[in-house]
Amino acid sequence: MPTADLRRYRVGVVQLSVATNRRAENLERAEKLVRAAADDDCRLVVLPEVFATALNLPKSHEIAEPVPGPLTEWLAGLARELGIWIAAGVLERSGGHVHSTAVLLDDTGELAGTARRTMVYDLEAHFITGVTGARVLDTPLGRIGFALGYDVQFPEVLRGLFADSAEIIVAPSVLLRPFAEPVRQMLLARAAENCAYVLFASATGENTLAGLTYMGRSAILRSPLAIGAYSRDFRKQQPVLAEADREEVLLTADLDLHELRRMRAAAPFAADFRRSPLGLALTAATHPDGPLPDWAAAAGRDPQDASAPENTPDTPDTP
Amino acid sequence: MPTADLRRYRVGVVQLSVATNRRAENLERAEKLVRAAADDDCRLVVLPEVFATALNLPKSHEIAEPVPGPLTEWLAGLARELGIWIAAGVLERSGGHVHSTAVLLDDTGELAGTARRTMVYDLEAHFITGVTGARVLDTPLGRIGFALGYDVQFPEVLRGLFADSAEIIVAPSVLLRPFAEPVRQMLLARAAENCAYVLFASATGENTLAGLTYMGRSAILRSPLAIGAYSRDFRKQQPVLAEADREEVLLTADLDLHELRRMRAAAPFAADFRRSPLGLALTAATHPDGPLPDWAAAAGRDPQDASAPENTPDTPDTP
Repeated sequence: MPTADLRRYRVGVVQLSVATNRRAENLERAEKLVRAAADDDCRLVVLPEVFATALNLPKSHEIAEPVPGPLTEWLAGLARELGIWIAAGVLERSGGHVHSTAVLLDDTGELAGTARRTMVYDLEAHFITGVTGARVLDTPLGRIGFALGYDVQFPEVLRGLFADSAEIIVAPSVLLRPFAEPVRQMLLARAAENCAYVLFASATGENTLAGLTYMGRSAILRSPLAIGAYSRDFRKQQPVLAEADREEVLLTADLDLHELRRMRAAAPFAADFRRSPLGLALTAATHPDGPLPDWAAAAGRDPQDASAPENTPDTPDTP
Repeated sequence: MPTADLRRYRVGVVQLSVATNRRAENLERAEKLVRAAADDDCRLVVLPEVFATALNLPKSHEIAEPVPGPLTEWLAGLARELGIWIAAGVLERSGGHVHSTAVLLDDTGELAGTARRTMVYDLEAHFITGVTGARVLDTPLGRIGFALGYDVQFPEVLRGLFADSAEIIVAPSVLLRPFAEPVRQMLLARAAENCAYVLFASATGENTLAGLTYMGRSAILRSPLAIGAYSRDFRKQQPVLAEADREEVLLTADLDLHELRRMRAAAPFAADFRRSPLGLALTAATHPDGPLPDWAAAAGRDPQDASAPENTPDTPDTP
């Protein structure tokens, strides 16, 4: 039986030690924390990017699997048994390509949707294929958008989700420790600029093969803006709902979509983005294949149609 | 005599109380702080957006002036006398339009360039015209890009500067207090994601006409990433070089373009942005009229040429 629409509910973010070549161990530890989240009344739990396999670039094709496939089925079984939604990162093999992919299972174990990582860094690009295209799903838990790992460092990727009115950005990640500080700054901004919750489920521990350390620092974030009841006054709210350091841990927090929707309706960012030629162009670019959001389709797909004055010419007119 | 190229130098950011209908007073207080910056060996000083006039929307056309014009000349005189570069925001009248514009005067008093604000909010849009188009100037002080006030809340606007390899983002602003917290989060991210210094010169004080309070919180920021000498190791560095609360004050900090350039060369963000179809599309959208950066021109202006696999189809293939 599908979930009725929820406005206030608890989410869990699992910060997992993702060990290379130890799939069974990873699954065992992941399962324990997902069960703990269900025990704590979470309706949605997020696991890190490639949580079962880690990234082992030269062996990517070998350790990847189709979606749906065995790992999706394992997650579906857990979601069905516990009656909760689960989002998790898997290494997906599709045709000749390998993608880092997020899967979302609903609370009956059905695959509600998937999304592939957009950005790949140069070394990865030999093994992992990036895609372009925002993916936002309308669910009883709100409008859920996906950004995987490296994507969060590229604000334009998440603007595709903003264009699609994502309310919750699910961000399974397997990022490295040297980037911990900038990634944290950027995640706070992603919540603020996109007026959305951000569920950042990060890998922790060591990649012993590559001699690298994962960043941990999982977090549940919201916009620092809030509006007062019955007013258009904006107030400051604490953006960090929960945050981990580098331990393997379950984070939980209560989301309030009612509050989020009031804030988004009062905040000018979305309307101004949609009126701007740049917002339209970016929306078209983040929807190369799929349908445009209604507002953008109505505005005309070709951003050139929206005429804007030029920036100051290099030689300004004299008065 | 033009400045020789500088690698390490001091900058000043003037947080000014911008009083409506008190141009002479605003100029007097601005001049005092610009002179203090020159006394403190600053080579570049930044004043807030519309620092002389404030925004008085219904009277915009009346209080705006051409660029160059009297206000530009006043700034040029100060720059020439003190031998420093000055960036400041002026309300510009051009044809039938009014723009919020940044002007940059070099240390001989020449107008080195101007840039107009891109984003306008709905109420403003009746009085102020936004433009599309990144503006980055190659100067002896480094590559300087501009973002005005409201622009900093739209990451896509600043990505045009990133595409053009801006090293220093000059951000004159006149933003309101309720947005102080999200703006601060976003500014930190702008420095991080664009690997650039951010000079945020913000108005403070009250807009007595509108009953609004300006946010203050001027800041000089850098990326939280740094690389160790002779290595590709990334290290954490303190991103806040200087920061004000709500007082009228001069902030100063020492920039190090040598360090910035080493860091940018080692960091993967720019190369990965340039390889991505989304990066190319955004670069084209932020350069609707002007020449594309060389790298983008070489990659082909039409981002559709860069073929990317589709995102996961709505109905995934079964294995």
